[in-house]
Amino acid sequence: MEPAFGLPISIPPRNSRDRLRALHRQLRAAILEGRLRPGLRLPPTRALAASHGVSRNTAMAAYDLLLSEGYLSTRRGGGTYVADVLPKLTERKIAPERRSVNDRRLNEFWRQPAAATDAGPRIPPRFDFRLGVPDVAQFPMDVWRRLSARTLRAFSRMPTAFEAPQGQPALREAIARHVSFARAVACRPEDITVTAGAQQAFDLLARILVTSNRTVVAVENPGYPPLHGAFAAAGARIVATPVDEEGLIVERLPANAGVVCVTPSHQFPLGAVMSARRRAALLEFAHARGAVVIEDDYDAEFRFGERPLDALQTLDRSDSVFYVGTFSKSLFPGIRLGFVVAPPWAQRALGAAKQSADRSCAVLAQEALAAFINEGHLARHVRRMRQVYGARRQVLLTGLRNDFSQWLAPVPSAAGLHLAAIAAASVDVEAFVERARQREVGVYSLRRYQTGKSGEAGLVFGYGALDERAITEGLARLRRIPRN
Amino acid sequence: MEPAFGLPISIPPRNSRDRLRALHRQLRAAILEGRLRPGLRLPPTRALAASHGVSRNTAMAAYDLLLSEGYLSTRRGGGTYVADVLPKLTERKIAPERRSVNDRRLNEFWRQPAAATDAGPRIPPRFDFRLGVPDVAQFPMDVWRRLSARTLRAFSRMPTAFEAPQGQPALREAIARHVSFARAVACRPEDITVTAGAQQAFDLLARILVTSNRTVVAVENPGYPPLHGAFAAAGARIVATPVDEEGLIVERLPANAGVVCVTPSHQFPLGAVMSARRRAALLEFAHARGAVVIEDDYDAEFRFGERPLDALQTLDRSDSVFYVGTFSKSLFPGIRLGFVVAPPWAQRALGAAKQSADRSCAVLAQEALAAFINEGHLARHVRRMRQVYGARRQVLLTGLRNDFSQWLAPVPSAAGLHLAAIAAASVDVEAFVERARQREVGVYSLRRYQTGKSGEAGLVFGYGALDERAITEGLARLRRIPRN
Repeated sequence: MEPAFGLPISIPPRNSRDRLRALHRQLRAAILEGRLRPGLRLPPTRALAASHGVSRNTAMAAYDLLLSEGYLSTRRGGGTYVADVLPKLTERKIAPERRSVNDRRLNEFWRQPAAATDAGPRIPPRFDFRLGVPDVAQFPMDVWRRLSARTLRAFSRMPTAFEAPQGQPALREAIARHVSFARAVACRPEDITVTAGAQQAFDLLARILVTSNRTVVAVENPGYPPLHGAFAAAGARIVATPVDEEGLIVERLPANAGVVCVTPSHQFPLGAVMSARRRAALLEFAHARGAVVIEDDYDAEFRFGERPLDALQTLDRSDSVFYVGTFSKSLFPGIRLGFVVAPPWAQRALGAAKQSADRSCAVLAQEALAAFINEGHLARHVRRMRQVYGARRQVLLTGLRNDFSQWLAPVPSAAGLHLAAIAAASVDVEAFVERARQREVGVYSLRRYQTGKSGEAGLVFGYGALDERAITEGLARLRRIPRN
Repeated sequence: MEPAFGLPISIPPRNSRDRLRALHRQLRAAILEGRLRPGLRLPPTRALAASHGVSRNTAMAAYDLLLSEGYLSTRRGGGTYVADVLPKLTERKIAPERRSVNDRRLNEFWRQPAAATDAGPRIPPRFDFRLGVPDVAQFPMDVWRRLSARTLRAFSRMPTAFEAPQGQPALREAIARHVSFARAVACRPEDITVTAGAQQAFDLLARILVTSNRTVVAVENPGYPPLHGAFAAAGARIVATPVDEEGLIVERLPANAGVVCVTPSHQFPLGAVMSARRRAALLEFAHARGAVVIEDDYDAEFRFGERPLDALQTLDRSDSVFYVGTFSKSLFPGIRLGFVVAPPWAQRALGAAKQSADRSCAVLAQEALAAFINEGHLARHVRRMRQVYGARRQVLLTGLRNDFSQWLAPVPSAAGLHLAAIAAASVDVEAFVERARQREVGVYSLRRYQTGKSGEAGLVFGYGALDERAITEGLARLRRIPRN
């Protein structure tokens, strides 16, 4: 019998009684010495037997012995766990002076990490108008499964170790074509860097563009807190800049802004489309001051209405714009794939930053996504979901207009997966949100997206995860809530 | 006909002649205006037809027209591309003053990104003793495909939007059990943070542990450049510390080291196992000075010989150790999954940093990996590959001893996917590497892993990607190379 690796369990090549004794003794020792921690779930006997070369009966007998001795316990729902009753294994008390040593081992920024602002409640309410979540149940999972399997088969035939920090060539080409056609973003494959969702795009851009404690980064107010978080982590001086019905108010930008983050096709969270005039003014600002613009196009593939205006990236004549796209809405958030269209001068740095951050995105998912785009599934799915979301949006809008017009005014917008509505000054929005939660309805206050005390009170309603019936029922429940 | 989204192509609801004319005109305009960039590959006519609601014949006719007019071109191997002959679309010349503006828009660190030191050659040599690459062809891809498909089915039935920054609960539990048993690392699920490979683990630890321009980070010399890169990007002051046959020479650590990065179970790249004495000394150093230790266990699941020593993480009594593991070697590098076992005081910060970096790892791959571990496939695969790699290693060692002993002395080691060998001082190792490449053999100089001019000259041989025959043939080719 070759020596078992890892946890030092070695099983003698003798009869099963000896084997049981050896296994039992060594597992017990591992528990007593803290090599197996209380609460750890032990492997199924089948797996233990296979990995240590004993029969399953022997493994079961060893577990039974340890159970009877109190070293292991079982839990409802199955599974065998290391018991936490042994005195030797009580948690070490951490002395106060130790705690302060530990605290000092973290750098200042991460010592008190802010609570995740956009994580949503732990147990989602039944009718959850949550933002940024598409209807994953509508995704053609069978197609994705087929393409994934095909990619795996190809990979097992020719498992090249090739990893490209900026993304698999096939995916970069597919994205370039997709955004050229579907989003009117003029680009070539070499302009694309594949990222782990839009969040990593923000993070990588913050890394290469921000000089800590110096670079001023203008963000929209209200805006998207996780983007602010990524720039703050890089040491940016963040300046919240107001928006109106034409989008970011360019004249209000700080003169020394080095980076300007905007959501021109669907302002987050209010919903305005940035006007052509403002787009031109913003690009002029960037050109004149050597600033860069980060164009976050997080959900505007779902448009309801006329043609989109050209992307800032397309209008740009001074290589100032980074366009950030994501597949979180058009596929599903767990895919964790997005991309940046970067100007040539930044591509090498962006690739190097990506390589330093995590080498590259997962290869198989990239290849499957390339096939999904190239075979027209993405365009087809987006096209179909525009209808689905459009209908939901209409139900929501109609409901708000019919039953809430006394105190809620929807903000005009023509795209995306959510609607904002401004509340009358007399209404306590936070209390309303709280009461809605008691009725199993999740609505969200505009406040969580605002910096400082300014800004109108209101609510945002995501309709990605609720179908028309659920929207109607959710609104009916909201209607019954007293407003003060 | 609803308006086409994105690229403003709108197709009239009339006869096919009109449709062809509209499609042609609008594609041409998009090319002339630079919305479709030269070199961009157009979608297949089938996809264009589907997404714009025309017949495939109409799409083909439009492409043919544009081809005949020179707006499009075809390439060998298929595909239709936007032509790059139009004068309007020649690349803008970037004026020198503009270039310096662009350069200043990047922060200093990323302005001159170092060439990737570990990326390997673009076209790998036929006999490539490359480091850090497992034999992916041996991976049970059929099992992985089955588990992936099952995960996708489960996901499509219950597509929870739940994303956990620190990783899916099922995977954290599976990893805790796996490392407790297989790597003798004592931990619980809540100690685990799932990362995009070991590289992201280093990157996140650098973020939370390094105060820019202040924190001293000790790394092994020779060592792993991408790890140094991640810490350098966070502003660490990196001090290269020598290693010997007992691993890192703890007495040579800078007294003010705040972070110490080590590879105790298989020193990278030399191969030594850190002695028990040094392990104790290192933990004492960390405890006494409030330093933290990053234990990089990159490939030591492949052991050949006796039991491993306890992990530093297990021996640690002052919550000083972060243990970093990866599935790049035991599965395949493109999976991009790894993990950190972190002490309790750092878990919250690590989760927040992960959330800021990219929200979470891809959900489906995490769930598939959890199943792969829980059903015993990982343990089985590792067990099998230890035999495979052990045999290769033996062939390599025997070959080196038989035919290269005059000038190459293999460094003793008992684990992993590569061997180091020290060269006689008389040999020009770099020239040898170059000549090997001409004979289609990839061997690598120790130099690329050394900091400064110190350190012995030598070669490293990875045997993850070469089978026994290829190793033999590679060595035969090396034998024929004149050494000076």
